[in-house]
Amino acid sequence: MSEKIKVIKKIFAANEKIAEENAAVLEENQVFTVNIMGSPGSGKTSLIENTTLNLKDKLKIAVIEGDIQGSLDAERLNRLNVEVVQINTGGACHLNSSMIQSALSSLNLKTIDLLFIENVGNLVCPAEFLLGERLRIMTLSLTEGEDKPQKYPLMFTKCEALVLNKMDLAPFLSVNPEIIKKEAQKINPKLEIFPVSCTRGDGIKEFSEWLKKKISTL
Amino acid sequence: MSEKIKVIKKIFAANEKIAEENAAVLEENQVFTVNIMGSPGSGKTSLIENTTLNLKDKLKIAVIEGDIQGSLDAERLNRLNVEVVQINTGGACHLNSSMIQSALSSLNLKTIDLLFIENVGNLVCPAEFLLGERLRIMTLSLTEGEDKPQKYPLMFTKCEALVLNKMDLAPFLSVNPEIIKKEAQKINPKLEIFPVSCTRGDGIKEFSEWLKKKISTL
Repeated sequence: MSEKIKVIKKIFAANEKIAEENAAVLEENQVFTVNIMGSPGSGKTSLIENTTLNLKDKLKIAVIEGDIQGSLDAERLNRLNVEVVQINTGGACHLNSSMIQSALSSLNLKTIDLLFIENVGNLVCPAEFLLGERLRIMTLSLTEGEDKPQKYPLMFTKCEALVLNKMDLAPFLSVNPEIIKKEAQKINPKLEIFPVSCTRGDGIKEFSEWLKKKISTL
Repeated sequence: MSEKIKVIKKIFAANEKIAEENAAVLEENQVFTVNIMGSPGSGKTSLIENTTLNLKDKLKIAVIEGDIQGSLDAERLNRLNVEVVQINTGGACHLNSSMIQSALSSLNLKTIDLLFIENVGNLVCPAEFLLGERLRIMTLSLTEGEDKPQKYPLMFTKCEALVLNKMDLAPFLSVNPEIIKKEAQKINPKLEIFPVSCTRGDGIKEFSEWLKKKISTL
């Protein structure tokens, strides 16, 4: 086991080094980068779609799309006329900074204001790998239940904002969003929380405005 | 990277060896073991609760409960008067066979007919780690969307059955369960599919009957 731990430490250290390099390149080019993480089906792509529609007249937006395989989400995002780079992890359950480094080399960073990185659908592992981003945001679907902050605390700790999606389903669920908010902020008192419905568009304006303010600090 | 790959191969080989040992112990004691996997909030605990209520008059049931931290699900299951052993992975995103080996040593296997193992909520990593189980079952919530078989194919390949949960929400979603079935069986033509609603109990009887038949082959 000690060999395993040593290798894992080396992996994290190597990842962090490249993440710092990515961060420097992104800052130099004035690209504000957001790492979007969350369970499969929690609404990562839908959030990017909705926010892009809201902000694309004001900002030049691009997306790095992370999937184990395939390019379904990249095709969805392409329809919005934003530049999309697909990463296929080939089995890996998270993106790492070296994958992002490769992807960055195929983007014209000088022309980009806002870069979304959509991580692999996973509430656990992506939280452990910095990519060089300025902001980490997690999506959680209301349907996932009230107990997620307590069961998967690391993701809630590492993110600056929680987008609580599928609020339109609230009347049909025995899930209280207030409990999720309370438990999430117990773990991370600074966590900003945005209740949204990506299918109806509710709450997207508030989220987009918040994001725009963050970008203006770059 | 080659050092990393070597260590990963070693981890898988070590895991498989202990999984075989677990399988032998479980067979010797005539314990039918089911590994339940799926995304956070897809209904793993609810499926175990519902199936246990259906089968506990006929079979002696126990549960090994896997969580990163805490014991919320174990407390839920304890209310059903079944024996529950809690594993906390302390950060790890999946159970492995060595954790199961420890858990087995604290159960009186001679008295158990059916052992559920609830894995960590994750549609990716648990699929890679055999535990010594006889059957692998995945839960997917209808709210996760139609594209999950294409995006997370390994889990669909490794399981014998897919429990498609939260069917009661179908009228409020633009998700077609038939597309999920079709795509899942494209990846794994032998996959049995059970549409259920754990909140309403729909489909639980059919799933329990199927499981009981599987157990009778032990």
